[in-house]
Amino acid sequence: MIELVVSMGDPAGIGPEVVVRALARRGEGMRRRVLVAGEVAWLRRVAAQLGGPARELDFFEVTEAEIAAGNFAGGRVAVCNPFVESLPELAPGRDYAVFGEASFRYVESGVKLVRRGLAGALVTAPISKHAWHLAGHHYPGHTELLRELDGGPEVGMMFWGERLKVLLATTHLPLSGVAGALTPELVAGKVKLLHRFLQRVGRDGKIGLAALNPHAGEQGAFGDEEERILVPALKSLHEAGVPVVGPIPADVLFHQALAGRYAAVVALYHDQGLVPFKMLHFDDGVNLTLGLSFIRTSVDHGTAFDISGKFIADSRSLEAAIKLALELQEGKPD
Amino acid sequence: MIELVVSMGDPAGIGPEVVVRALARRGEGMRRRVLVAGEVAWLRRVAAQLGGPARELDFFEVTEAEIAAGNFAGGRVAVCNPFVESLPELAPGRDYAVFGEASFRYVESGVKLVRRGLAGALVTAPISKHAWHLAGHHYPGHTELLRELDGGPEVGMMFWGERLKVLLATTHLPLSGVAGALTPELVAGKVKLLHRFLQRVGRDGKIGLAALNPHAGEQGAFGDEEERILVPALKSLHEAGVPVVGPIPADVLFHQALAGRYAAVVALYHDQGLVPFKMLHFDDGVNLTLGLSFIRTSVDHGTAFDISGKFIADSRSLEAAIKLALELQEGKPD
Repeated sequence: MIELVVSMGDPAGIGPEVVVRALARRGEGMRRRVLVAGEVAWLRRVAAQLGGPARELDFFEVTEAEIAAGNFAGGRVAVCNPFVESLPELAPGRDYAVFGEASFRYVESGVKLVRRGLAGALVTAPISKHAWHLAGHHYPGHTELLRELDGGPEVGMMFWGERLKVLLATTHLPLSGVAGALTPELVAGKVKLLHRFLQRVGRDGKIGLAALNPHAGEQGAFGDEEERILVPALKSLHEAGVPVVGPIPADVLFHQALAGRYAAVVALYHDQGLVPFKMLHFDDGVNLTLGLSFIRTSVDHGTAFDISGKFIADSRSLEAAIKLALELQEGKPD
Repeated sequence: MIELVVSMGDPAGIGPEVVVRALARRGEGMRRRVLVAGEVAWLRRVAAQLGGPARELDFFEVTEAEIAAGNFAGGRVAVCNPFVESLPELAPGRDYAVFGEASFRYVESGVKLVRRGLAGALVTAPISKHAWHLAGHHYPGHTELLRELDGGPEVGMMFWGERLKVLLATTHLPLSGVAGALTPELVAGKVKLLHRFLQRVGRDGKIGLAALNPHAGEQGAFGDEEERILVPALKSLHEAGVPVVGPIPADVLFHQALAGRYAAVVALYHDQGLVPFKMLHFDDGVNLTLGLSFIRTSVDHGTAFDISGKFIADSRSLEAAIKLALELQEGKPD
């Protein structure tokens, strides 16, 4: 079985570039463990344009039957291509229906391979949701597609770095809508998702739950969501034996998290978790989807259309995503 | 003129302890520049209980006339006491009306000395607002009292550390009330307050303004406050020649701030600014009040009634507050 499928992402974005860079930087040991869902001709052209060690990469196309048989020749990079057309050479940095269709198929085939047991985990390079929409695929992003293809009841968006691991209880909401979106059930569900994941990857320790309001509301002086929502959620979690503490004022929680007090923390909204995360892991953070039947990591950035085609992209986030997906399968993440 | 007045804080809290510790740790050069608003007998007892270098401290009471004449004997610690009674020896860690009255007078006399030009700046040790209330002084905290005594039109709460300087546009509000509290005028007023302060203390560079919503609202997809409130505020600031950029997604802004891109940043709400600040400066952060006619810094913690009387408090925040108040007067802050 191949260990990882890496989807190539939108051809007009920096996805193919960071895939090629990561493969070139990480050596034969990693290349042997990875399969790319993408197009050989496109990857070869990117490698030629990048130059340096990337020119030594030897991409070759494999069929599903060959993937099932496993055991590719060492050192070469296996590529599967679920998209029947050849990718046209279009100017980078824009949305095209054809690239939306191709990048959609790469993710879809990655999920199929993982779900059929032919690959161990999925790592995704960035797609353009606008290009997906042009191709008629109306998903807000990877996560919703993955959830639908995998059939899981609930997913969670987590960010993983060496110094900080944080799950978001809510994601892309206006700040004014956060308090109204929280319920004891939602919070407890997210904490349980995180707890099950930490158990699965062999990581011990407590979970820290952030408060919503400054000073955790200071006994109701600035907000009652701690008493009304978080305390009941914690009660049900403690009854279920989940090792979680909170609600902890966020400015205290993240300080404690940095000192190693928690296995991971739960932030209640996007910026509460991502301000501290990106301060520590702007270049090497990994986005992780919880609640799927398989491990899925992703780069922590988008298609970067503004620098696409300039060959100045940084592949550290993808390299970290690949490394983490391999480690999580082994149950030995940092 | 004496350079600093340090108010001793609530006697039942850790204020007197951190004042004595800071004076003992910082040497004669600093002691010569500082006047304490508090009680000699109390400070002497704390110094004796602390032991070590604190026992060498020589506290002596000075009158206002002596302060006006200036030039105290070197090495001794001058103390002014505006509270006529002797402080009773009560158990630490609780609220008492008598201590509320005393700690209120210490702050009040500090403000008087500074406003009359007898001292250069004010540094405050922590008070208990409940004790103030018991004594009939109904202020939510130092800031509101200072504003009233100084008569300024608007104050701002800022946090200053070597690596991050952040002003809060709103402070102790429930998270659900933040969006509704913001107006273009409020945001522009706070940014101007910060700009004037940075000019006064000789600090060049741009100000970075945080967005309210994730991804700065992503063109209105998750919230319209960026367009409705922040863009108009920025327009009026640019017309007034204020060097400010934004609105910048908060998870990007604080990463950039760490890289030194801004002289200071403006956070729109408590946790947006204090989560990153406390990650970097939990023990040595300084709270700074802008908009007063004088420089005022404060410790970044409370009375810590839970550890008061145990003599295990950390004086680094007060030392940083004293150091910063001295540097800001010289126009050379870090």
